[in-house]
Amino acid sequence: MSKLENVSVVKAANIYYDGNVTSRTVELADGSIVSLGIMLPGNYTFGTNEAEIMEMQSGDLEIKLPGEEWKTLNTPETFNVPANSSFDLKIKTVTDYCCSYIKD
Amino acid sequence: MSKLENVSVVKAANIYYDGNVTSRTVELADGSIVSLGIMLPGNYTFGTNEAEIMEMQSGDLEIKLPGEEWKTLNTPETFNVPANSSFDLKIKTVTDYCCSYIKD
Repeated sequence: MSKLENVSVVKAANIYYDGNVTSRTVELADGSIVSLGIMLPGNYTFGTNEAEIMEMQSGDLEIKLPGEEWKTLNTPETFNVPANSSFDLKIKTVTDYCCSYIKD
Repeated sequence: MSKLENVSVVKAANIYYDGNVTSRTVELADGSIVSLGIMLPGNYTFGTNEAEIMEMQSGDLEIKLPGEEWKTLNTPETFNVPANSSFDLKIKTVTDYCCSYIKD
């Protein structure tokens, strides 16, 4: 059972799409931020500021990254999203993810 | 923005009711456990082992505790659930909660 050790967690959730996408913000010991989130089945579009590394811990989805075709990803895939971009997701089964951010 | 500091977080979510109820397990510095969770609108029944203190961080719900009538609770209510019991919830709006457990 993998854990994030010696961290701080913001008590309040981040809530998007009427709660169909939610996450908790975790601050690691080195000051970097990770989001642990849940996406329920549905279609979503998200924007990024920093580049993201999305680690799928459960679930199946289709994703359309900028300039790419739709592709299917199943756990335990990991995908990267460019900074300052927008991407589309079709969540097929409940997806539990861990999102890290890449500083410039 | 309240934080739980110096804690460990289990990376994988706890997923119930097809993802309509999810939580993250947080281990505090003193070894006690807290769950940070989200409940989407719907009707649920939960059982307890240890007694619980449920702090509502957002949302509105109706609850039926053992031997009591239904009652409405709105954020920022806190309610207690006895150990080894079962209780019913009607979640009216997305509810973000922090659940603590009371050791015997």
